[in-house]
Amino acid sequence: MVQAPHNLSCVLSIPGPIEVTDEVLFANAHPSMSHMSPDFAPVFGDCIRMTRQLLYSKDAQPFLIAGSGTLGWDQVSANLVEPGENALVLHSGYFADSFADCLETYGANVDQIKAEIGGAVKEADIESALKAKKYKIVTVTHVDTSTAVLSDIKAVANVVKRVSPDTLVVVDAVCSVASEEIQMDAWGIDVVLTASQKGLGTPPGLSILVASQKAVQVFENRSTPVTTYYGSWKKWLPIMKAYENNSAAYFATPPVNLIYAFHASLTQIMQGSVSLEQRFKLHQEASQRVKKAAEEIGFKGVPLSEDIQANGMSALYFPDGFVASDIIPRLLKKDVVVAGGLHASIKGQHMGASVVDSSRGDIDKIISAVKESLAEAKASKQ
Amino acid sequence: MVQAPHNLSCVLSIPGPIEVTDEVLFANAHPSMSHMSPDFAPVFGDCIRMTRQLLYSKDAQPFLIAGSGTLGWDQVSANLVEPGENALVLHSGYFADSFADCLETYGANVDQIKAEIGGAVKEADIESALKAKKYKIVTVTHVDTSTAVLSDIKAVANVVKRVSPDTLVVVDAVCSVASEEIQMDAWGIDVVLTASQKGLGTPPGLSILVASQKAVQVFENRSTPVTTYYGSWKKWLPIMKAYENNSAAYFATPPVNLIYAFHASLTQIMQGSVSLEQRFKLHQEASQRVKKAAEEIGFKGVPLSEDIQANGMSALYFPDGFVASDIIPRLLKKDVVVAGGLHASIKGQHMGASVVDSSRGDIDKIISAVKESLAEAKASKQ
Repeated sequence: MVQAPHNLSCVLSIPGPIEVTDEVLFANAHPSMSHMSPDFAPVFGDCIRMTRQLLYSKDAQPFLIAGSGTLGWDQVSANLVEPGENALVLHSGYFADSFADCLETYGANVDQIKAEIGGAVKEADIESALKAKKYKIVTVTHVDTSTAVLSDIKAVANVVKRVSPDTLVVVDAVCSVASEEIQMDAWGIDVVLTASQKGLGTPPGLSILVASQKAVQVFENRSTPVTTYYGSWKKWLPIMKAYENNSAAYFATPPVNLIYAFHASLTQIMQGSVSLEQRFKLHQEASQRVKKAAEEIGFKGVPLSEDIQANGMSALYFPDGFVASDIIPRLLKKDVVVAGGLHASIKGQHMGASVVDSSRGDIDKIISAVKESLAEAKASKQ
Repeated sequence: MVQAPHNLSCVLSIPGPIEVTDEVLFANAHPSMSHMSPDFAPVFGDCIRMTRQLLYSKDAQPFLIAGSGTLGWDQVSANLVEPGENALVLHSGYFADSFADCLETYGANVDQIKAEIGGAVKEADIESALKAKKYKIVTVTHVDTSTAVLSDIKAVANVVKRVSPDTLVVVDAVCSVASEEIQMDAWGIDVVLTASQKGLGTPPGLSILVASQKAVQVFENRSTPVTTYYGSWKKWLPIMKAYENNSAAYFATPPVNLIYAFHASLTQIMQGSVSLEQRFKLHQEASQRVKKAAEEIGFKGVPLSEDIQANGMSALYFPDGFVASDIIPRLLKKDVVVAGGLHASIKGQHMGASVVDSSRGDIDKIISAVKESLAEAKASKQ
């Protein structure tokens, strides 16, 4: 099965799914299969194992649940933080506000450290906050899709381990898993939460969360009951363990077809001709090409410096004198769908198949489309 | 695209997805599409409108969210019941215990009325309970998949309206929507919650809940904050309204491909050659054929009487002297996957495409397979 020609809806679109390979779509059309079937259990088991490997962990516990990335916030808020406990949210864009909102819904006391727009939170500020108050968790958005700012999660984890070693480090990695390197064990990350539709190249509908054994222990030592039902690790932990042992178990029906699709994508990522290390390098190279080409014609990156630029997406201010309506409709006519951002910018993703499979020509196409659209916009103003 | 031959994994399998048509699977393999795309919004809007029509409602509010049917319990428990309020759970099988567990997780005081195994809760018992205490909601499982008992939700709603008109009537219809008639407005049902993978003939991963305007009003008049984030109607209500107006809005990423698949299935159900009324009749006929054939060879229905037998599934006690291991492996060899039930029974579904499209021959196949398997089991014991 080969996909019909279609808009590159996701190469420079945000928020939204990225391009999906034919193999993954074909797997998503798997004939109906019971989630209790002995044929399905090892497929789910493989997904659990490959997800752990993808994050360079030996023993962290993946949770694969029908839902969007947002459900990961609920899982953290309701399983790891007890009502009245403190959470520190590092703010590098819009998604930190939402995570804070979620934590407060489940009763956490939330403090935020807000970076300036286009910046990441400074280590010295994190250190001061951790010294002033005891926090159960620190959350950091690896790549905030509103700003394309890449936070240095290894450095954040380092500060936390040094100043407040009991505090759990939670990474919102919705827009970074499989396009940015994440070494859970070596860096001391306790939770990585993400979704299927970005760097993992699978249709949306799967919440993917991986918890360190330390985090699982904190969950198990709660003194109050878990405050969610659907996202309760008390319910899901035995299910995930059963499937990892290649036997089926039931709490709530998993999204069977999406699990087949995720399996196809993980197999391409973990066992394909391009290694994981090479995949990260290709994302860096594609990102630099896109950003350089855009800057040459007058766009300017939202991130304040090169070292905090995401490699799987870009957020770009328009050249002086141009606004969203000058550019976006013209890109659309060239089959490239982008989204307007805050702060007079556009935002777009360049990750997954579009980056790894250069024969698709997606990156060249998007660069040409941006150049041509700006040229047309200039011409129309003369 | 036509599916490869495969086991009838769902005709008599429980819990699990039912057979899915080629058109629905093809839609599930739709190329990647942003949920913010103007092409996608009206597809989502159609799904909202058709879901409402399917339940014979003029103005009830559908919520279509990435998740399993279980997420519907969380939505009810966290949006409609405030901590400390009373909920009455009518118990006709396993799933009532779980719904009660969910309600208690979010702080409700739960009372249960338990029917005997194979029975439905009696109206007189409901009336007594409603007179003894004020309940915010009454929940009833339309078809409990552990017993195949069909509850008379019209009668339940009648009692509630008569004795305690403020109390909301919540129907867990995971195993009944599109195989049993549900008239929300005429019968006075306030919430119908279900999932994509049963009578709606779509792969699993979509939580489908429809709330009456009365229920929405109760939600809006809460005096305490909603106790979930991912399932909060405060977040989702504006999103559903936007999509129904054919414009995109963002809270959490919808399962785009599943929405395409759901659209394909709803279109077949609501606009296909078989009317909705005829669909229910076909389910009744297929159900009677299956149950009659099984009873002729010694199986016995778990439901205590004919008037409370589900039309979309069967739960059958084994003939005297036979156990699960005599029958289930033999059915599997004939490409029919079934599940063992509680109480020395097997349980299976007969709904959707298998019932409506008689040219598939699924029902005949399952009847023959059951007959042959029992005959083989008998022969092996002689």
